[in-house]
Amino acid sequence: MRASVVGASGFTGGELCRLIDTHPEFELAQATSREYANKTVGHAHPNLRHLDVRFSEPSDLESVDVLFAATPHGVSMEHIDGFRDAADLVVDLSADFRLPSVEPYDEYYDGHARPELLDEAEYALPELNRENLPGADLVAAGGCNATASIMGLLPLFENGILDGDERVVVDVKVGSSEGGAGGGRAASHAERSGVVRPYAPTGHRHEAEIAEYLGIDVAFTVHAVDMIRGASATCHVFPDGPVSKGDLWGAYRGSYEDEPFVRMASGGGGVYRYPEPKAVAGSNVAEVGFELDRSNRRVVVFSAIDNMMKGSAGQAVHAANIALGIEETAGLEFTGLHPVGAP
Amino acid sequence: MRASVVGASGFTGGELCRLIDTHPEFELAQATSREYANKTVGHAHPNLRHLDVRFSEPSDLESVDVLFAATPHGVSMEHIDGFRDAADLVVDLSADFRLPSVEPYDEYYDGHARPELLDEAEYALPELNRENLPGADLVAAGGCNATASIMGLLPLFENGILDGDERVVVDVKVGSSEGGAGGGRAASHAERSGVVRPYAPTGHRHEAEIAEYLGIDVAFTVHAVDMIRGASATCHVFPDGPVSKGDLWGAYRGSYEDEPFVRMASGGGGVYRYPEPKAVAGSNVAEVGFELDRSNRRVVVFSAIDNMMKGSAGQAVHAANIALGIEETAGLEFTGLHPVGAP
Amino acid sequence: MRASVVGASGFTGGELCRLIDTHPEFELAQATSREYANKTVGHAHPNLRHLDVRFSEPSDLESVDVLFAATPHGVSMEHIDGFRDAADLVVDLSADFRLPSVEPYDEYYDGHARPELLDEAEYALPELNRENLPGADLVAAGGCNATASIMGLLPLFENGILDGDERVVVDVKVGSSEGGAGGGRAASHAERSGVVRPYAPTGHRHEAEIAEYLGIDVAFTVHAVDMIRGASATCHVFPDGPVSKGDLWGAYRGSYEDEPFVRMASGGGGVYRYPEPKAVAGSNVAEVGFELDRSNRRVVVFSAIDNMMKGSAGQAVHAANIALGIEETAGLEFTGLHPVGAP
Amino acid sequence: MRASVVGASGFTGGELCRLIDTHPEFELAQATSREYANKTVGHAHPNLRHLDVRFSEPSDLESVDVLFAATPHGVSMEHIDGFRDAADLVVDLSADFRLPSVEPYDEYYDGHARPELLDEAEYALPELNRENLPGADLVAAGGCNATASIMGLLPLFENGILDGDERVVVDVKVGSSEGGAGGGRAASHAERSGVVRPYAPTGHRHEAEIAEYLGIDVAFTVHAVDMIRGASATCHVFPDGPVSKGDLWGAYRGSYEDEPFVRMASGGGGVYRYPEPKAVAGSNVAEVGFELDRSNRRVVVFSAIDNMMKGSAGQAVHAANIALGIEETAGLEFTGLHPVGAP
Repeated sequence: MRASVVGASGFTGGELCRLIDTHPEFELAQATSREYANKTVGHAHPNLRHLDVRFSEPSDLESVDVLFAATPHGVSMEHIDGFRDAADLVVDLSADFRLPSVEPYDEYYDGHARPELLDEAEYALPELNRENLPGADLVAAGGCNATASIMGLLPLFENGILDGDERVVVDVKVGSSEGGAGGGRAASHAERSGVVRPYAPTGHRHEAEIAEYLGIDVAFTVHAVDMIRGASATCHVFPDGPVSKGDLWGAYRGSYEDEPFVRMASGGGGVYRYPEPKAVAGSNVAEVGFELDRSNRRVVVFSAIDNMMKGSAGQAVHAANIALGIEETAGLEFTGLHPVGAP
Repeated sequence: MRASVVGASGFTGGELCRLIDTHPEFELAQATSREYANKTVGHAHPNLRHLDVRFSEPSDLESVDVLFAATPHGVSMEHIDGFRDAADLVVDLSADFRLPSVEPYDEYYDGHARPELLDEAEYALPELNRENLPGADLVAAGGCNATASIMGLLPLFENGILDGDERVVVDVKVGSSEGGAGGGRAASHAERSGVVRPYAPTGHRHEAEIAEYLGIDVAFTVHAVDMIRGASATCHVFPDGPVSKGDLWGAYRGSYEDEPFVRMASGGGGVYRYPEPKAVAGSNVAEVGFELDRSNRRVVVFSAIDNMMKGSAGQAVHAANIALGIEETAGLEFTGLHPVGAP
Repeated sequence: MRASVVGASGFTGGELCRLIDTHPEFELAQATSREYANKTVGHAHPNLRHLDVRFSEPSDLESVDVLFAATPHGVSMEHIDGFRDAADLVVDLSADFRLPSVEPYDEYYDGHARPELLDEAEYALPELNRENLPGADLVAAGGCNATASIMGLLPLFENGILDGDERVVVDVKVGSSEGGAGGGRAASHAERSGVVRPYAPTGHRHEAEIAEYLGIDVAFTVHAVDMIRGASATCHVFPDGPVSKGDLWGAYRGSYEDEPFVRMASGGGGVYRYPEPKAVAGSNVAEVGFELDRSNRRVVVFSAIDNMMKGSAGQAVHAANIALGIEETAGLEFTGLHPVGAP
Repeated sequence: MRASVVGASGFTGGELCRLIDTHPEFELAQATSREYANKTVGHAHPNLRHLDVRFSEPSDLESVDVLFAATPHGVSMEHIDGFRDAADLVVDLSADFRLPSVEPYDEYYDGHARPELLDEAEYALPELNRENLPGADLVAAGGCNATASIMGLLPLFENGILDGDERVVVDVKVGSSEGGAGGGRAASHAERSGVVRPYAPTGHRHEAEIAEYLGIDVAFTVHAVDMIRGASATCHVFPDGPVSKGDLWGAYRGSYEDEPFVRMASGGGGVYRYPEPKAVAGSNVAEVGFELDRSNRRVVVFSAIDNMMKGSAGQAVHAANIALGIEETAGLEFTGLHPVGAP
């Protein structure tokens, strides 16, 4: 199948090019970049220096089977008709179609230009929405921080341990790739290395996504820490009544036992007892684990993903595989490295 | 004044040697290390290679004005009589005398060998206990994670915004120096770099310290992140009723306005809008800041310290200065570097 | 084909398990570890937590098609008969069979227990020794620093720009994974992060390997820098007469044009103009590039590899593929990530 | 004495503000920044948040005793008359007055606007030029990579081991602060972390400085590695005849024994056997050490500095102290931290 990437010079766009290039069913038909048009893909992405593909202008879209849009928020809603004309399946990685109703766009973003399409779009996260993906023609990948949080909390909701009126605090730690390839002053190595930098301490946009898909208002704070790839969500959960470890294992096994991209890491032995972003760097795996305090009243859930894989490009390819009837795990078999930096 | 350091080859011991060496009133009379006895201090601490001081055996304590004990937990309670014989003032940096009653030692540690001394010991944190330090002869420095948390939360208690029955979640991020100089597989660079590693997700010992000194049971989780020095506490606080930014500023100004080692960083401009461990690396400064959500019901408090300074050696020297009637800030004037890594 | 890994709990052993697990022709028949016997492979290697394989005792070797030995120097020469009894092909990743004659073992190591086997062993590096690998039954992977250096310098020798009596200075920068999984004090995160640490400033063992295979005595110095995976060799070369950029391009193209695991990176555009370890992390690719000074008398060659892939486990699998008549690139298609840390 | 900093919002400018603020003889009279005029100094430099000083426009220079110019190359030569009108002593930290003759400006820079002043300017490095500093009114701080190299090589020239016609290869590793506060894509954390990035593999500007002050053409290559502060020079030196360790110790002791800011680190015990940038981070100390190979024909010299201190701001204050007749070490007593990141 022919696949194209719009916005291919950014970090997520490069990740899509990489995944498509080694995908058994896809070939990279086109990679667009206004800034780097006519330069090789390797100019922007050194890991793809061997690829004989050049960026083309985004105005010249070729006809393909699947188009991945990795553009900044707001671009896809403007160009969505052109994208859909060019491709049978459009997978958008921005926030533009990721929420099911227009209200949160008004509250957290600058409104929405094409609200009538929100109903058509399917949320890409298979663990949450697998049944609606086959045959979909517009799919929207989730936000990376929301994905990490949802992957951690989902089994508690699916299995009745939470129902939406409890107190949940989500404290997220993310890497620098989340900020994109732009490189402003705050993103510079000298200023960004070694930080524990709070941003959007309250009112982060991904709150809306969690609220929509889990039905709960979480207290949500994100910190930048010193890694490049990775998002780690620590969810402090206070169920209404006591729970047992058995209840929790039952919930997580019930939801994730057959999921190809979930690894449980919940207090076992060795150096890596809990989910760890660097253990999944480069892979589409989400690691999930939990602990319970002595009183059985507080649950701490940990969830770790590669923000560029499970948190965007990998999730997008996973959903495309399902939408197109391809083997779910095709092109996503890489399981991560050890040892490795996140940086 | 003559000052000695027991356990001087460890990270905290080295920090004490450094501070004493450049302190206007102290001279480094003795630095003990069983492992490195007879080697130069610079053998263990390259920043002190120029010092003409050799480690001596801890069994041979010289008589000094002030003795700083930087030994592992359990050692001070065993040797405390010898320490007090050798020095007019003993400042202990372990957990051995940091809690006022024996119960938490039974619950979180292996009990206590000298419970009768707990009443005599003064908690070192001047912002909490300055009035009891002058003339004290046994002072116990707080734990670094507890110190970061208390520095963030104290004004809310002192000024009536919290009274102890609210929900408070404290999510701490710490650097690798907290683990000490021992090494070990989990501490190795290859395994430790780039991590967001939960440890003691529930039941961390420093909970007890916060409970004792603030009178509140916090939900407390600590994560190792990729920095060497630094502890950053994010406190998610839910007061019983709505509060305003004015209330919060009033509280923090009220508690900290005259404190020489507190810097407010609360949403101003520039790259560093909130407290940042790397901005205080090497200094005794605590940075504190906060944000309030739109509903005025959730407060997020940030607090950043250098775990080896405000979180141990710096706090110890600060308390010793007060106990001995020296200028409070003597030897602690360094304000941190920019740019700098934490690593 | 059935493949086993002896010494599978170390870093290189884990990398072999990972490569074998996803190799189209291999299955992981056995992974031995004395220390972790009966624990899952994921206990030591979190990226393999999903594998249902447990470490077994090294005394119980199963019969396999290919055995990879990832043990410390000295172990293979002691156990080589048992290894060869168990497998048709033995690929050794230690230094034990990597040098063709016994003299350098006497000079740089502690001598050799089985010198008669040195003639039988084939050096694994395909770019240097491809023609002798098919059908080999004892193959020895090169040292990582030597591999980085040889990959940079080889075309200059193969194409007559150097002949062995010139001055060549090789200044190598390596990551912490080279030190193995042991975790002593010098390897700890707090001591190892951010270093530019010279070790073996003169007399490094890999000198011998370069001397044997290129026929030149290089001035060789290795520095530890802050990355986990990666070795970067900067070779300062002073040919006897002037050379041109055209000569150099001719040499590098002549040697590497058809090599599947070499990428040239020689002063092009973008952020990554020259070879970069982090661009090849996790891949078997060697990046090579060069610059020439104004006087045309000094050539600076850069070479970057992942020390655990091209510098050991990847090179071993590559050589095994050739020895066994499998597609050369099988199981080694991963091309690296962008962006990514090395850490 | 009143001191001002022109270009105070950059990294070097901030370092000067920090040093002046705690200097026993200086007070910070003015800190200029066009970009941040009227904002507090802490806006740009979080370690100085407590300072009650605001940036002012550079057009409004106050009269001071000493003016430090930390502006980009080319600015000082344009504004030098204004600087000298405002201050009795001008210390320039750019390249503008650092070379004694105009030729290298023509070759390595864009020429020079005020060549007649090159004779008046004194090179700031006290170890090289102390005798000419007292009473100087125009002082030019050296380049950081040149300073690291000169500090390593100087004793070999001063003591007859090198005379200028030998082969010397200098391989420098530097941190990201050297690139300044501007940001940009290549400087971003995601692209810059974990690199071993060659830049200016040949023809680096600091070659000229070494040639001028040591009288030797070195083969000079600089690599960016993952640290923020620090420059480490490895000098591979091939004297004409054999030398002994005794010769080398004699040379280094001869040149540096009484230098307050040089620490020898030459193969002793402990974790830090050789010069290490992170051991001097924040300090004005240069660490220097060496090794000799078995043949006594090759010397490897290591030199480590903080590029922002000994390599610029610290060197500038050191030279100003001497020029103004103040105690040499005033304001420069900080000896570095342990452990610490460079990042």
